[in-house]
Amino acid sequence: MKSFLGEDFLLSTPTAQKLFHEYAEEMPIIDYHCHIDPKEIYEDRVFDNIAQVWLGSDHYKWRQMRANGIEEMYITGNAADKEKFKKWAGTLEMAIGNPLYHWSHLELKRYFGYNGHLCTDTAEEVWNLCNEKLRSGLTARKMIKMSNVALICTTDDPVDSLIWHEKLAEDTDFEVTVLPAWRPDKAMNVEKEDYLNYLERLTEASGVKVRSFASLIEALKVRMDFFEARGCVVSDHGMEYVVYEPAAETEIERIFTKRMKGDFLTREEIRRFKTAFMVAMGREYHKKNWVMQLHFGVKRDNNRKIYSEVGADAGVDCILSPAPMAELADYLNALAVTDELPKSILYSLNPMDDAAVGTIIGCFQDASAVGKLQQGSAWWFNDHKNGMINQMKSLASQGLLGNFIGMLTDSRSFLSYTRHEYFRRIMCGLIGEWVENGEYPSDDRALEKIVKGISYHNAVRYFGFEDMGGKNGVRTVY
Amino acid sequence: MKSFLGEDFLLSTPTAQKLFHEYAEEMPIIDYHCHIDPKEIYEDRVFDNIAQVWLGSDHYKWRQMRANGIEEMYITGNAADKEKFKKWAGTLEMAIGNPLYHWSHLELKRYFGYNGHLCTDTAEEVWNLCNEKLRSGLTARKMIKMSNVALICTTDDPVDSLIWHEKLAEDTDFEVTVLPAWRPDKAMNVEKEDYLNYLERLTEASGVKVRSFASLIEALKVRMDFFEARGCVVSDHGMEYVVYEPAAETEIERIFTKRMKGDFLTREEIRRFKTAFMVAMGREYHKKNWVMQLHFGVKRDNNRKIYSEVGADAGVDCILSPAPMAELADYLNALAVTDELPKSILYSLNPMDDAAVGTIIGCFQDASAVGKLQQGSAWWFNDHKNGMINQMKSLASQGLLGNFIGMLTDSRSFLSYTRHEYFRRIMCGLIGEWVENGEYPSDDRALEKIVKGISYHNAVRYFGFEDMGGKNGVRTVY
Amino acid sequence: MKSFLGEDFLLSTPTAQKLFHEYAEEMPIIDYHCHIDPKEIYEDRVFDNIAQVWLGSDHYKWRQMRANGIEEMYITGNAADKEKFKKWAGTLEMAIGNPLYHWSHLELKRYFGYNGHLCTDTAEEVWNLCNEKLRSGLTARKMIKMSNVALICTTDDPVDSLIWHEKLAEDTDFEVTVLPAWRPDKAMNVEKEDYLNYLERLTEASGVKVRSFASLIEALKVRMDFFEARGCVVSDHGMEYVVYEPAAETEIERIFTKRMKGDFLTREEIRRFKTAFMVAMGREYHKKNWVMQLHFGVKRDNNRKIYSEVGADAGVDCILSPAPMAELADYLNALAVTDELPKSILYSLNPMDDAAVGTIIGCFQDASAVGKLQQGSAWWFNDHKNGMINQMKSLASQGLLGNFIGMLTDSRSFLSYTRHEYFRRIMCGLIGEWVENGEYPSDDRALEKIVKGISYHNAVRYFGFEDMGGKNGVRTVY
Repeated sequence: MKSFLGEDFLLSTPTAQKLFHEYAEEMPIIDYHCHIDPKEIYEDRVFDNIAQVWLGSDHYKWRQMRANGIEEMYITGNAADKEKFKKWAGTLEMAIGNPLYHWSHLELKRYFGYNGHLCTDTAEEVWNLCNEKLRSGLTARKMIKMSNVALICTTDDPVDSLIWHEKLAEDTDFEVTVLPAWRPDKAMNVEKEDYLNYLERLTEASGVKVRSFASLIEALKVRMDFFEARGCVVSDHGMEYVVYEPAAETEIERIFTKRMKGDFLTREEIRRFKTAFMVAMGREYHKKNWVMQLHFGVKRDNNRKIYSEVGADAGVDCILSPAPMAELADYLNALAVTDELPKSILYSLNPMDDAAVGTIIGCFQDASAVGKLQQGSAWWFNDHKNGMINQMKSLASQGLLGNFIGMLTDSRSFLSYTRHEYFRRIMCGLIGEWVENGEYPSDDRALEKIVKGISYHNAVRYFGFEDMGGKNGVRTVY
Repeated sequence: MKSFLGEDFLLSTPTAQKLFHEYAEEMPIIDYHCHIDPKEIYEDRVFDNIAQVWLGSDHYKWRQMRANGIEEMYITGNAADKEKFKKWAGTLEMAIGNPLYHWSHLELKRYFGYNGHLCTDTAEEVWNLCNEKLRSGLTARKMIKMSNVALICTTDDPVDSLIWHEKLAEDTDFEVTVLPAWRPDKAMNVEKEDYLNYLERLTEASGVKVRSFASLIEALKVRMDFFEARGCVVSDHGMEYVVYEPAAETEIERIFTKRMKGDFLTREEIRRFKTAFMVAMGREYHKKNWVMQLHFGVKRDNNRKIYSEVGADAGVDCILSPAPMAELADYLNALAVTDELPKSILYSLNPMDDAAVGTIIGCFQDASAVGKLQQGSAWWFNDHKNGMINQMKSLASQGLLGNFIGMLTDSRSFLSYTRHEYFRRIMCGLIGEWVENGEYPSDDRALEKIVKGISYHNAVRYFGFEDMGGKNGVRTVY
Repeated sequence: MKSFLGEDFLLSTPTAQKLFHEYAEEMPIIDYHCHIDPKEIYEDRVFDNIAQVWLGSDHYKWRQMRANGIEEMYITGNAADKEKFKKWAGTLEMAIGNPLYHWSHLELKRYFGYNGHLCTDTAEEVWNLCNEKLRSGLTARKMIKMSNVALICTTDDPVDSLIWHEKLAEDTDFEVTVLPAWRPDKAMNVEKEDYLNYLERLTEASGVKVRSFASLIEALKVRMDFFEARGCVVSDHGMEYVVYEPAAETEIERIFTKRMKGDFLTREEIRRFKTAFMVAMGREYHKKNWVMQLHFGVKRDNNRKIYSEVGADAGVDCILSPAPMAELADYLNALAVTDELPKSILYSLNPMDDAAVGTIIGCFQDASAVGKLQQGSAWWFNDHKNGMINQMKSLASQGLLGNFIGMLTDSRSFLSYTRHEYFRRIMCGLIGEWVENGEYPSDDRALEKIVKGISYHNAVRYFGFEDMGGKNGVRTVY
């Protein structure tokens, strides 16, 4: 029996152990998509206790506490932090096989030096140990540095001032590169009640009076230039599905005008508007050589009671039915046919889409980049051992695993970098198994290239980080 | 090589063996959903031969016999029982990897003491052995008792008199609790030709004249009170999909009136009616603290030739395409938003729905019960080793496996209780593997709680069986 | 560690090794569905170099080269063959876990005696070695003979003259049976621009003036008789989905007349037409006792830029969303209800359809053939280790794996027969694992029957090859 979370955790063969310990383990982290607040990095946030770090905004944990029959007051309510933590400890016991079990214990081990397991019986001990560490200098920046992070991309709205990114860029004390990422969901979600308010904010931020679809895109282009000047190289979109229902420009302007009058749109009109919006965005990304990330297959805020009490990101989102693949393919083709398809990463929240997505990206690869189209790492509800193995097996079966750009945290927490370790162990476990089974030769040179590539180099190359020079450059460790 | 169906069948690690033999094996069975006829329990049915037990109504076996090219006369026709049995024996040889191979041999081993394997060559020997046992007292009740069953929930129509449940409750010779379960499909299936006849039967059974949607619900409430008085704590619904298309009360009454006139309804009207019906039912279950079971993703009676010759449950049903998850989430929300969502178990027949369903239940958990929303055990066409492993891995990845209420037989047969053993072995195999891999600590106290919980205690707690007292109480073996 | 592609490649247990080496390895190959050009067999095509063999028309490899950022000139363009080959060698290094890695190396090993691994460093050596072998007599026929192929079914259009089949049938020097297969896609695809041209060609080939739906079917029947006379026993259909929307004969004739006038049809009309077409075809196949193959779940030619430059089969096809299972079931029922359902093989390109398809075939089995309805072997994008294992586990869980007709190449290449070896190793690996785990008895007689059946005998029986006699007969090796 292997010891719990031991040195060779998830590395079941000698080859896997070698791949991880010799090649993967020491590579820096490129966290090209996360939800960390750059202000907290700049201000080097200090945490009072482990409940603040763990339970302050982690809807993954909130869901499990509700599943354990815990009262909401101990989850998002007014109970004392220590009480919340104890309820979490009791919940964790039941979470056998859940990624939170592994993540939580990896975090306890790597950042707090705790080697036991958290449960009701050990909750007091862990509470005291963690809080002592947090008080003695385990701040936001310290966590990032301990994690060997080279670069972070946050997630930012087009109207954001990027003030904290500016300050971070000027701060010579902090060696980690922090770049903004462009997420214009609010500019696309024409069906939302506050859409017109958002357009006003965009008008203000861009200096372009948004009164037509054309001027909307103009305003966004102004802001994209602004983002680009602050180092942005990647965009991000969250949507139920990628839609494709093209319409004439005049029709799009008619729809936009209708909405500007305060009217709501039909399902058809919304689909047409979003198609036009996404085609326009794709073209701009291509011009700037930005990467386009498409996150789809999610239905948000399903429990309206919790939503009304806690707000968005309360842990009441779910996976949608398999995505309409024909539309996804047609959308990508609409850009490819005029040679305007940007580098793109596709993430479906429904793991049943893996095979189809893997074949769609294969249709649009071209010589403008190695692995131009990527299937995103197992995302959100799939960000667990089985999810990652399935995603990598699917990707390997349909395409070139060797060109995979690998892991990202997608997290709001400074402790989530252990997910990169978790991913790398699983990746080395899988590749090691293939080698030991005689499915790939035991060729050290090739394996080193593949493992270091997926851990680090592929992302550096893909996003073009090695070209940025100066502080925005990335340590290149070969 | 492990011996066929040996002591450590499906238990590939020492931890798995310990978990099963020390914790799971001896726990009683709570069979909270099955299709056994309570009359046969009460009358303690005697079987003439093994063909009667196995082939009398088992459409799982019929399908495989057809797949082996067997003539229908040997399946559901007039051939002699012994001939049918021999055809089944020959079919079984080809069923490598099929759950029927394991179920059949577990049944032969546990109930008949047969340790070989059934095939054409051994058919005669097995026929004689089994029939001898059946003649020497292996009756329905004996089978149940041999299986360490504590409690059985049958499946019953609202108009059922529950006479056999009443007799069983009065029979002090039989220690196993047998409770009715509420399955009002016929009251919902407004599109069926005989719907109006059914309403007449419901009028008669309830004493409420059903002439409107409101009175339909009133009549069902009368019957629910009747079921409750006989110990019912669980409902069950079978449907293609869970739909959600809300409409005003007046519209529902209009639709009902239209149907009462003998007219058929449009697809839209049917969807609206069923939505209203299911919302009304959900609210009543919540009031009574009943569990709501939703079985969906099935298309029945596909082969109309076989259906016309053999009738329903002839083995010609199939899995539907992935379910519309948005509607499922919206239906649950419609109940949750007013705090009227009952404890619910969701079963999709399409295993590709697992991940999405696992995330939907996570949106509606609350403090009114531990594991209030459950993802049902791998059902029907998924009730096999891979199906169970996939369901448990998915459940563990998305939620708290430790709170899972575990297995049920869903069977018409008195020999199916070995499916609980099969499930427990697979569950212990999976958990044992995690522990041996260092993915969960080797903590006996925690593992015992989890394994005994999934085998038995979680279901007792979930359905509230420990509170019933007296004969309806359940042995609690810790 | 096992050596790369060693003798026991993919055979992880002693039982697996025994099953493969004693039972599966030596069985002849029945390649009942492929895209080989019979002219190339007849003329015994000689290849100048390995790039011609491997890269001339293999869109599987083209996709991966594009995914590696290779310029199109080295893929389908004018670069020298040797340069193309080197680009492929470099691409292959990154293809860890991809079936092309295994296929390519099995081909190098079996046909060229190369035991190393192909990469940039070895490209020159492999280039020289392979070309030497190709020059010294490794022709198309030699490749087929080396592969122990007993029978090949090609894929042919109804208007094809079958001249090469005729010549092959008369060629007493070549012992392998080569039969045509009937693929009338062009007669069904009423939405295509060149449909009317195709009807003219059909008129010419059949001698039946096609001017109505009824005469279209008449013309096809004439051609089916022609195909039958040349040994055809199997049909094949490629489609997005199997649709079922029945309409009256007069409506079908109205739709056909509309199209004949040069008008395009509505989506509804196309669905009705295709339903009528497929029902008519199914009935004819049943009369002739032909096997009907249905390949669905594919969206073709997605990248219109590549398509316009390279044409069809350029490597820009993808998997569609899960298929509408209700329509598939209803289509099969429409034939079964009048006892006109032919033997059928269902292939969905979306592996998420596996479970549903497995249950649908179970609804329509009958005594007219053993395993009358088959779930096709993992197809195209699923033709890899995981895909095959998943397909076989699903098939075994839902039906009788012992009656599975097994592998086909679906290939354009004469080197693809190693895919049968690859499949057999995986199949023996899976069955061996079950036996070693105690899930099936170690019964040599039963296992030999199952393994030889899936490798060879089941297909012989299913297609009726043993009855054909003479040169079209098949070696039967028991």
